[in-house]
Amino acid sequence: MKVLVLNAGSSSIKYQVFAMADQQVLVKGLIDRIGEAGSEIASHHQSLERIIQHLQASGVTVDAIGHRVVHGGERFHQPAQIDADVIAAIRAMISLAPLHNPANLEGIEVAQRLFPDVPQVAVFDTAFHQTMPPVAFRYALPESLYREHKVRRYGFHGTSHRYVAQQAALYLQTGLADLNLITLHLGNGCSATAIAGGKSVDTSMGMTPLEGLVMGTRCGDIDPALHFYLQRETGLDSAALESLLNKHSGLKGVCGVSDMREIQQRAEKGDEAAQLAEAMFAYRVKKYIGAYLAVLGKVDAIVFTGGIGEHSARIRELVCRNLEGLGVEPDWVRNWLPTDGVLEFQQPDAPLRLLVVPTNEELEIARSTATLVLAPSAPTSPHSP
Amino acid sequence: MKVLVLNAGSSSIKYQVFAMADQQVLVKGLIDRIGEAGSEIASHHQSLERIIQHLQASGVTVDAIGHRVVHGGERFHQPAQIDADVIAAIRAMISLAPLHNPANLEGIEVAQRLFPDVPQVAVFDTAFHQTMPPVAFRYALPESLYREHKVRRYGFHGTSHRYVAQQAALYLQTGLADLNLITLHLGNGCSATAIAGGKSVDTSMGMTPLEGLVMGTRCGDIDPALHFYLQRETGLDSAALESLLNKHSGLKGVCGVSDMREIQQRAEKGDEAAQLAEAMFAYRVKKYIGAYLAVLGKVDAIVFTGGIGEHSARIRELVCRNLEGLGVEPDWVRNWLPTDGVLEFQQPDAPLRLLVVPTNEELEIARSTATLVLAPSAPTSPHSP
Repeated sequence: MKVLVLNAGSSSIKYQVFAMADQQVLVKGLIDRIGEAGSEIASHHQSLERIIQHLQASGVTVDAIGHRVVHGGERFHQPAQIDADVIAAIRAMISLAPLHNPANLEGIEVAQRLFPDVPQVAVFDTAFHQTMPPVAFRYALPESLYREHKVRRYGFHGTSHRYVAQQAALYLQTGLADLNLITLHLGNGCSATAIAGGKSVDTSMGMTPLEGLVMGTRCGDIDPALHFYLQRETGLDSAALESLLNKHSGLKGVCGVSDMREIQQRAEKGDEAAQLAEAMFAYRVKKYIGAYLAVLGKVDAIVFTGGIGEHSARIRELVCRNLEGLGVEPDWVRNWLPTDGVLEFQQPDAPLRLLVVPTNEELEIARSTATLVLAPSAPTSPHSP
Repeated sequence: MKVLVLNAGSSSIKYQVFAMADQQVLVKGLIDRIGEAGSEIASHHQSLERIIQHLQASGVTVDAIGHRVVHGGERFHQPAQIDADVIAAIRAMISLAPLHNPANLEGIEVAQRLFPDVPQVAVFDTAFHQTMPPVAFRYALPESLYREHKVRRYGFHGTSHRYVAQQAALYLQTGLADLNLITLHLGNGCSATAIAGGKSVDTSMGMTPLEGLVMGTRCGDIDPALHFYLQRETGLDSAALESLLNKHSGLKGVCGVSDMREIQQRAEKGDEAAQLAEAMFAYRVKKYIGAYLAVLGKVDAIVFTGGIGEHSARIRELVCRNLEGLGVEPDWVRNWLPTDGVLEFQQPDAPLRLLVVPTNEELEIARSTATLVLAPSAPTSPHSP
């Protein structure tokens, strides 16, 4: 079985075809600058036609298509085979993810026209977190905002958190249902998840992907009254403030640069703003580790993933420093070992394992898609180990 | 030496006179509804005249006056004897605390006119937290907002956190400089502070008192993008949203009631919204305990104070449950013992002490005032034990 995975953004489409038997990538690519001035590609339709040409030239046929969809609201607790009802539901949630769901939907609709006979599946960034209890997902806001306006914590990066949790369980040779984990997805976007018995019970991103950790250009947690002060002091309007918090804050706000590798080069050379940005990034992660240790009571492993989580031993070192009292006892040498697969870097006999687990959201989408297409009535966790 | 402590709000003044030799309260009172329709008291000036009558009727003379001032910005790391320069500085910080500093200033100016020969001291809610390092006080926002607009974490309730930290040190017969503490001020407003070697190194309230824990009517931590969503969805303007987050959220938002005693009565009778409000309150405190354990590495004691922290054994029980893995091992029976003074309720030989320490912000202001008036050139921590 071959599965095409599509991740459609507003001006780009990423695609990969997996042969599920051995999980190999047969074809992959990225089309970007869709619809931009000077670009050859005017639309998602034209992009999909290009992708079909690429598949044909490679002699690849597709048995199923898996679409990444950012927001599944409270309705989608698991991947869903796409039909008119599912499309209507994704459309109904556009107000929750105005930047992402419309582009995801366009990808789905174009793919349905061009692959009318291929079963298609939507895999939601939010679905894994739908197991959170109300004490974690509700905000201390008027109940009517939840009932009438769907204001709650949803969480994102669910496909990644779920994938690395499963990979950690395989590596630890333990059933996921028997594991308590803290998973740290540290990339351009960053989030931490508390996983109890294999299920997400809390996560740092909230109603939107702006809450929580310090990110490349997103502020993460701030005082909710800052908005009013800044509007009074600077005269910024709402749209300018939303852009400032999403695109000009985070690491970039603190030191002018959003790329962690460049920040670390500058920090090594003595750039104080870069040093502060790196320290703030690690400090926030450390606080979430503490918070989720308190939520979970007992934790089997902390899992680092994402571009920064997988490749910055320096960030892992800053995050893990001075946490011995909480059971975090790193082997500081092992932490720096190069690795393609899973790296385990706690001390022998440490109470808590420390793992680096490479994420692969596309493979997880392909797996979910294949599972659902092969067994449409599968139970809620179709591929728990 | 007798010290009058004044806490002037926009429509109320609380006052107490302490005899410093034995720290007894000689006179105390509250004047409220100042300037409201139907009130006998039109102004702060008139209120102070009433207070003077009360002092005279009680045969009490005053040697010094201590004023509570909410916001001392980055300038005030400790109490300050009031002169024209200090008044100008408090005025310059009105934009940081537009609801509080103007009322505090009015109290100071009226007291200066009516007690021209009495030395007066300003004691700031923010001062104790000025020892926080940049990694804790900076937000991941553009640096210019910090440099030009003073956007940073200040923290509040500093007088209370400092007072209970000192009382805990006395109780534990240890120098405060040798103690790591987590102090939890849980009242109408709520905040948590991480104290390393007697100094505040992080605190849950931020630029304003809205950030952090769930409070009576304040939301505490939320997604910073909620504002934009709510404005789009509900059409609320900025002023209405600011009022909603400050006055109609928190416990009141979740269950309709802001008073913890009433919430607990309702929860016991099976009211699900009250049960959720109580659980969310405790859950947020628990997460901050975990975060500050991670920040501090090693903690000697967790200190509960404030109306809820001192009097709700039920909340202390919910907060401390399931934290054994982090060294929190409560004696569940001792936790419920009635006490006027300090209550210690961890298990014998637990790694971390659990204390209830009654706060007394007025006494702390009186002490700071007396210390500064008697030894104006005292070092930065004039009354560390």
